[in-house]
Amino acid sequence: MAKEKKLVEAITSMEEDFAQWYTDVVKKAELTGYTSVKGCMVIKPAGYAIWENIQSELDRRFKETGVENVYLPMFIPESLLQKEKDHVEGFAPEVAWVTHGGLEPLQERMCVRPTSETLFCDLYAKEIQSYRDLPKVFNQWCSVVRWEKTTRPFLRSREFLWQEGHTAHATAEEAEARTVQMLNVYADFCEQILAIPVVKGRKTDKEKFAGAESTYTIESLMHDGKALQSGTSHNFGDGFAKAFGIQFTDRDNKLQYVHQTSWGMTTRMIGAIIMVHGDNSGLVLPPKIAPTQVMVIPIQQKKEGVLDKADEVLNALKAAGLRAKMDDSDKSPGWKFSEQEMRGIPMRIELGPKDIENNQVVLVRRDTREKIVVSIDEAAAKAAELLETIQQAMFDKALAHREAHTYEAYDYESFKQTIEEKPGFVKAPWCGCQECEDKIKEDTSATSRCVPLAGGEVKEGTACVCCGKPATKMVYWGKAY
Amino acid sequence: MAKEKKLVEAITSMEEDFAQWYTDVVKKAELTGYTSVKGCMVIKPAGYAIWENIQSELDRRFKETGVENVYLPMFIPESLLQKEKDHVEGFAPEVAWVTHGGLEPLQERMCVRPTSETLFCDLYAKEIQSYRDLPKVFNQWCSVVRWEKTTRPFLRSREFLWQEGHTAHATAEEAEARTVQMLNVYADFCEQILAIPVVKGRKTDKEKFAGAESTYTIESLMHDGKALQSGTSHNFGDGFAKAFGIQFTDRDNKLQYVHQTSWGMTTRMIGAIIMVHGDNSGLVLPPKIAPTQVMVIPIQQKKEGVLDKADEVLNALKAAGLRAKMDDSDKSPGWKFSEQEMRGIPMRIELGPKDIENNQVVLVRRDTREKIVVSIDEAAAKAAELLETIQQAMFDKALAHREAHTYEAYDYESFKQTIEEKPGFVKAPWCGCQECEDKIKEDTSATSRCVPLAGGEVKEGTACVCCGKPATKMVYWGKAY
Repeated sequence: MAKEKKLVEAITSMEEDFAQWYTDVVKKAELTGYTSVKGCMVIKPAGYAIWENIQSELDRRFKETGVENVYLPMFIPESLLQKEKDHVEGFAPEVAWVTHGGLEPLQERMCVRPTSETLFCDLYAKEIQSYRDLPKVFNQWCSVVRWEKTTRPFLRSREFLWQEGHTAHATAEEAEARTVQMLNVYADFCEQILAIPVVKGRKTDKEKFAGAESTYTIESLMHDGKALQSGTSHNFGDGFAKAFGIQFTDRDNKLQYVHQTSWGMTTRMIGAIIMVHGDNSGLVLPPKIAPTQVMVIPIQQKKEGVLDKADEVLNALKAAGLRAKMDDSDKSPGWKFSEQEMRGIPMRIELGPKDIENNQVVLVRRDTREKIVVSIDEAAAKAAELLETIQQAMFDKALAHREAHTYEAYDYESFKQTIEEKPGFVKAPWCGCQECEDKIKEDTSATSRCVPLAGGEVKEGTACVCCGKPATKMVYWGKAY
Repeated sequence: MAKEKKLVEAITSMEEDFAQWYTDVVKKAELTGYTSVKGCMVIKPAGYAIWENIQSELDRRFKETGVENVYLPMFIPESLLQKEKDHVEGFAPEVAWVTHGGLEPLQERMCVRPTSETLFCDLYAKEIQSYRDLPKVFNQWCSVVRWEKTTRPFLRSREFLWQEGHTAHATAEEAEARTVQMLNVYADFCEQILAIPVVKGRKTDKEKFAGAESTYTIESLMHDGKALQSGTSHNFGDGFAKAFGIQFTDRDNKLQYVHQTSWGMTTRMIGAIIMVHGDNSGLVLPPKIAPTQVMVIPIQQKKEGVLDKADEVLNALKAAGLRAKMDDSDKSPGWKFSEQEMRGIPMRIELGPKDIENNQVVLVRRDTREKIVVSIDEAAAKAAELLETIQQAMFDKALAHREAHTYEAYDYESFKQTIEEKPGFVKAPWCGCQECEDKIKEDTSATSRCVPLAGGEVKEGTACVCCGKPATKMVYWGKAY
């Protein structure tokens, strides 16, 4: 019984220590497991099943916009990584280097891809000759490596899973449109499927991707008031094309450089789900991403007829298209409840001899713990409805939390005070100079999260919150993961 | 028009030069693309879409048997790789070594996984304590690296994609049952979905996996008479468990070692599809794995009503659940036919003004080139039927080819002569000594492919085809990829 005890033992409360709460949830919901490979993680079945759902939802949305999947090598020869100056400066300090193949040293060392812009450019330079070859709208699902010093499961690890889209277009306008299109795909996915509200915006020059002309981002707010960059979409202009010589003959037979984009979303979103929706009983999964949506838990299951009835309910749930399971193990119901809650399964259905007598079951919401008694015959239909309700309620709650933790500041003292005392986003005007960004980071450890696409303008005469010079943009600031 | 010409230009005929034919098909069907990363491949959309279908079919079959997906790190610290003696000897000479992370040398170098037995053992040693933790039936989809000297797309490359299942069980019987179960999953998948007949068998000790107690294999025969190992399933007994200390307390509270298995299938199967089914017009894809099953090609598409009618047919095909596309580009019909054939799309539907007048369309089989005229109203239903027919016909043809190229030999002279003159499998009795295997390989370059599960016994008094001593097993021999 030692094992059972361990699981129902309370986890650290998030109010007491959010970081420890996070670590406890990751471990006790069995999302990750042990590995002796430092800084890397093992994603266990409960965690990987969430990633599979993220993949299938995103992949479907990508393909609807014409994306085609490919697979490129995991290695990048050093000379290839170095072709674009800003890019190599951004990534070279944090890559893993392969120096030997088998028993022999390599003639040229190669890094394990931290991202694959250079490889896609290498491919496109060979494959694109004419405007007829455009656009290229490729994506790959793979793992990448960045040699981080401090790591946390899902949020920052030396290896993580992601998708990286890389496109090439005939015109700057088309590249910009694709950049924004994919940002919107990410935003819709986050809001509709993960129930995580996001702020869409542009990164400042200081925060943009190494080699990009502009970086768009979606930023979400965690329960502790810290921001999480949740997906980025980059417009490279023709910078990489010039570095790699990716040219095509246009309809007028003139040689032109292509315009490129890239965009990515990672396993870090599992961390976002935990930190936006979780509570002191563990994980809370939005129904649309939950690998198991409903857990049927029979009470006094040894009494005649209980398991049969539970099985009927289970089958009705499955027939209604819900992802449902039954826990008929020999653990106690209370232990099963705790486990279902810890694992974040959005709903459980309890039914025992008394319920069966009354032709009823009890639906229990994971998010609010509300219990709803419904007739057995309606169980599946009501469960499906309730899952919709939960999905929406989780989004609404996360949105209300973000709104309640979004502040404004127009002078530096109140800005600093807000950052220090009120975890959340602080909207404040900015002059556009990196000096102010640097100063704010030094003084408060907050960074510019983005210039929002909606509401990024400032009225004439507004002063930069930091230096007091005329502001050009409204910026979301915050401490970030 | 330079590009069009290139595509319809004939490929090397397989009778003339099979290896060059293969290379031509891979390139012209646009399965792989250019990369400057030596020995690695770029899998382009047409190739990757086949892999996605392989993944989804296999993954579904795995999950039906209780498999759960996970993800483990891509790096293996050297000390971990070395824990199982046979395993490290098998793999150490062909791994890629990471020696630097960022700007600093690593304290311990790590290899990029060539396979992940050691990592799974590392995990299982921590996660398995009690019989209640068993079985573990994990699988991961990932890429692995083996530093091959000579490489060919799909068949042998320094990095390839695969799945690797790794299981741990309480008893030897359960491990053996899982090993055979997964072999059967592979065999059924190959035969039912890829239309590739396989011989199920066991590897000899010489040919088994590094560290395995026994290795089961499915072997298929390519069009040129060479064998391709198409999937393997290994029973490790408790060898790895002892090396890694993976123990559990059983129901009687006694400490026991687990019994383990692993099993894998790779992107090499795309090579098998090409070499089993392809012809001198290019790729021929079995309908069940083809990303596009039917290509609708309108004739004289500028004439009024043609595109509308073609669109109707396309929609009817999609509504019938078929993966269908229309080629309404401004290329000539002949060019479109060649392209559809090169890419191996199992069927095309031609319709022009004459057809529409007669309320008919023409179904053209890729495998036999047979043309079948059907009424437009029946197009989708007939196409669906015909795809089933094609799938079965492709399997039957491949099976007939294998049977016609499977020989027997009972004395060494005729054995050597058959291997030399008749590409295919040669069934011949064997004494069980590695010396004979070594001699056969040296004399003929053929290797033992497997001892078949059906028909692996020999009659008493049968002599080893090599040394003449009493034979213990019937073996499939052949030259292999």
